[in-house]
Amino acid sequence: MNYRMISHVLGWVIGLEGVFMMLPFICALCYREENPFLFLFCGLLCIVVGLPLCLLKPKQKSMFAKEGFVIVALSWILLSIFGALPFFISRCIPSFVDALFETASGFTTTGASILSDVEVLPKSLLFWRSFTHWIGGMGVIVFLVALLPLSGGDNMHLIRAESPGHSVGKLVPHVKSTAKILYTIYLGLTLLQVTLMLLGGLDLFTALTLTFGTAGTGGFSVLNSSIATYSPYIQWVITIFMLIFGVDFAFYYFIIQRRFKNAFHLEEVRGYLGIVVTAILLISLNIYPVLSALGTTTVADTIRYSAFQVASIITTTGYATTDFNLWPQFAKMILVILMFMGACAGSTGGGIKVSRVMVLIKSIVKEVKVLVHPKSMVKVKLNGRPLEHETLRGINVFCASYIFIFAVILLIVSLDNLDFTTNFTAVVATLSNVGPGLGAVGPTGNFSCFSALSKLMLAMAMIIGRLEIFPVLVLLSPKTWNR
Amino acid sequence: MNYRMISHVLGWVIGLEGVFMMLPFICALCYREENPFLFLFCGLLCIVVGLPLCLLKPKQKSMFAKEGFVIVALSWILLSIFGALPFFISRCIPSFVDALFETASGFTTTGASILSDVEVLPKSLLFWRSFTHWIGGMGVIVFLVALLPLSGGDNMHLIRAESPGHSVGKLVPHVKSTAKILYTIYLGLTLLQVTLMLLGGLDLFTALTLTFGTAGTGGFSVLNSSIATYSPYIQWVITIFMLIFGVDFAFYYFIIQRRFKNAFHLEEVRGYLGIVVTAILLISLNIYPVLSALGTTTVADTIRYSAFQVASIITTTGYATTDFNLWPQFAKMILVILMFMGACAGSTGGGIKVSRVMVLIKSIVKEVKVLVHPKSMVKVKLNGRPLEHETLRGINVFCASYIFIFAVILLIVSLDNLDFTTNFTAVVATLSNVGPGLGAVGPTGNFSCFSALSKLMLAMAMIIGRLEIFPVLVLLSPKTWNR
Repeated sequence: MNYRMISHVLGWVIGLEGVFMMLPFICALCYREENPFLFLFCGLLCIVVGLPLCLLKPKQKSMFAKEGFVIVALSWILLSIFGALPFFISRCIPSFVDALFETASGFTTTGASILSDVEVLPKSLLFWRSFTHWIGGMGVIVFLVALLPLSGGDNMHLIRAESPGHSVGKLVPHVKSTAKILYTIYLGLTLLQVTLMLLGGLDLFTALTLTFGTAGTGGFSVLNSSIATYSPYIQWVITIFMLIFGVDFAFYYFIIQRRFKNAFHLEEVRGYLGIVVTAILLISLNIYPVLSALGTTTVADTIRYSAFQVASIITTTGYATTDFNLWPQFAKMILVILMFMGACAGSTGGGIKVSRVMVLIKSIVKEVKVLVHPKSMVKVKLNGRPLEHETLRGINVFCASYIFIFAVILLIVSLDNLDFTTNFTAVVATLSNVGPGLGAVGPTGNFSCFSALSKLMLAMAMIIGRLEIFPVLVLLSPKTWNR
Repeated sequence: MNYRMISHVLGWVIGLEGVFMMLPFICALCYREENPFLFLFCGLLCIVVGLPLCLLKPKQKSMFAKEGFVIVALSWILLSIFGALPFFISRCIPSFVDALFETASGFTTTGASILSDVEVLPKSLLFWRSFTHWIGGMGVIVFLVALLPLSGGDNMHLIRAESPGHSVGKLVPHVKSTAKILYTIYLGLTLLQVTLMLLGGLDLFTALTLTFGTAGTGGFSVLNSSIATYSPYIQWVITIFMLIFGVDFAFYYFIIQRRFKNAFHLEEVRGYLGIVVTAILLISLNIYPVLSALGTTTVADTIRYSAFQVASIITTTGYATTDFNLWPQFAKMILVILMFMGACAGSTGGGIKVSRVMVLIKSIVKEVKVLVHPKSMVKVKLNGRPLEHETLRGINVFCASYIFIFAVILLIVSLDNLDFTTNFTAVVATLSNVGPGLGAVGPTGNFSCFSALSKLMLAMAMIIGRLEIFPVLVLLSPKTWNR
């Protein structure tokens, strides 16, 4: 294990977090807050801790896959610990476990909160809370690799560990260029959304924070009512941009390169849109009778509610325009299934990912075909090409790990003796980085009902989910630390 | 598709069911029931329908895997339909869908009921209800193959489709001999349990019906209180025999053959016992404070409740000695996880099976090892031997299908707008052939709260679960019926 290399990169990560904290510091100055130097202090603290580690250059620059996993897993844990300091030091979140939960929820773009009233927080803290979504959405390591002089080809291990989407790292031969392309697309789409939000009459602060939550598919809002009180225009803009950020970024790269054929050849993107449209239709049909019986809801309103919620849940953002906890069970089940599924691989969304679900369904269909005609040679294909055995195995093992980790965390969380709906959806909402679930953790509830142990487990679930499981398993495996 | 062969075997199955109905007919005569000829009539009806099909011998005796799957899937559907007639004709269950649900629940050894009061049923119907468990436990096709002159080597396809446990069909080279060995062990253990129950002071009727429910890992009782009112001795006998019937029957075959080394080499059996002991301990620790606070429960009572429920749920029997719906959430979650897992492959129990779960966990551990040391050659082993790629793929596809079918049925059932706990556990309780779940379908509840559509879906889930998914998927696949 190359310990020097690990501490070197971790130094960069913590230092960079300190630099990022300068933005909420500026925000605090603009709004002339009571405690303007909170973020300056926390930021400098990060830099003071990070810089020495960062300056201590590793003798050996080589890195193997296991170092990549360990670095990425530790990075996200440290990011959450240091990022929690402003909440804790300002006493806005007096318990450190709560502050850690909130920050892990931010960086992992989960958007699950332990706060019952976010509107009392100072603007700078709200800004930081949403900004962590934007940082976490595309990834810190990707950012580091894109911008900073980290050593050469071994970075692939880092990028792969942080962003295991199929296409990331395959867009162009150089890792650094890929990281740059990803961040350029990310920034461009973010700016476009901010502009549209400003055109809708929002102030810059609200436009920025809501866009951060959309782009990272996070879900922290600056109002207790999430997105419910904004105009239909703003709600539609957010709906569309949530869906946009849930698409594999390779799609946009192909579009920019005018390789339209490649773009529309991506089977996952077509599958994703098909699922979105079907889910919107089914939910609209299911909730319309209920909503129209209650009052003045029109068909247009129903479709807006349904489209917003489907986009919010499948992309694992977690914004809400209505309390879907009150919807009929069928609509809620569609949402729960979408929570497990998540968005496209290579997007900022979480969950198991549409492509993995598609491959699993295809392998079931293949199995039945082989049972009917035992001598037929059927291969599971994606984007027209047969999948390699290794890829299939990886997908199977990923899904199995997802289910096992789900079961273990559910078991631990149920020690708190809350109801099954709350526990079950709390685990899927954190492991898939969605945010709200059903029951006590529904869109109008929050995660404060859980014990400290459960909160730590759920925070761990968020990091496990964001990093697609294996970096954390490698970190925890005794094999990694042998010899 | 060899239609003649299909109708020939189906004829045997229906005819055999008619013969089986003579037992409850004798029961009705013994108890001088109001309607003594109900079962004689239904039995003759089955024989009249079955005999002509049975006599129409197929020209071609060859059979492929797909015919095997189709025959087995259709057999179980027809068994449920014809087996429902006594309930329906006697008007004891006035709705045919309900009667079908109850019978499918019997044959598939699920034990889920739509009846709120079973004690009002005539003894002959109670006998039939429990006897279906015993028939379904080891399988009808296995019975046919063991006893009847069905044509030669192709029977392997039938046996494999009905009893896909790893070891079935591999005990001895001849299918017929294997089927005979299985039924001999089954009958022997059944007689042993009946004797022990009689020694505990039960009458023959109760001893027989409760043993049928234990041996088939079914769970239908003859009292509304399930097993709660019987003596601790009876409860312990049932606990131990449920666990016995949850073990791979290859274990007993090895024991009889004095191949003790082979028997104790079966990794799944050791894993199963390990899980049982751990679950009993964890649940006892979790429920003891709650039960002792309520009243006079001793440590011995707590262990008896816990051991009974763990044995009942992991073997997917579904008997209850207490309303575990009222237990703390942690204990309930252990039970829910055991519902998914189920018993050993090659036993009469349902669920995903312990060996599959063990293999999945091993493949996750293997994946992490490979990530840490990419050049290491690690193989997933069971019973000391590396598993073939095909076996691993089969297990993965099975688990993926289980999850997808679970999601689809959950979605359809949730149209009834019952609560999530009820819906979720109703689906796992039927798909894993357990019987009771939590919420409205808990041990004191029943499945009458569901709509006819949901009941049909849940009955289908039972058959899908009992046949381990693929026979039903092959039956429903258009590919099967092409050309």
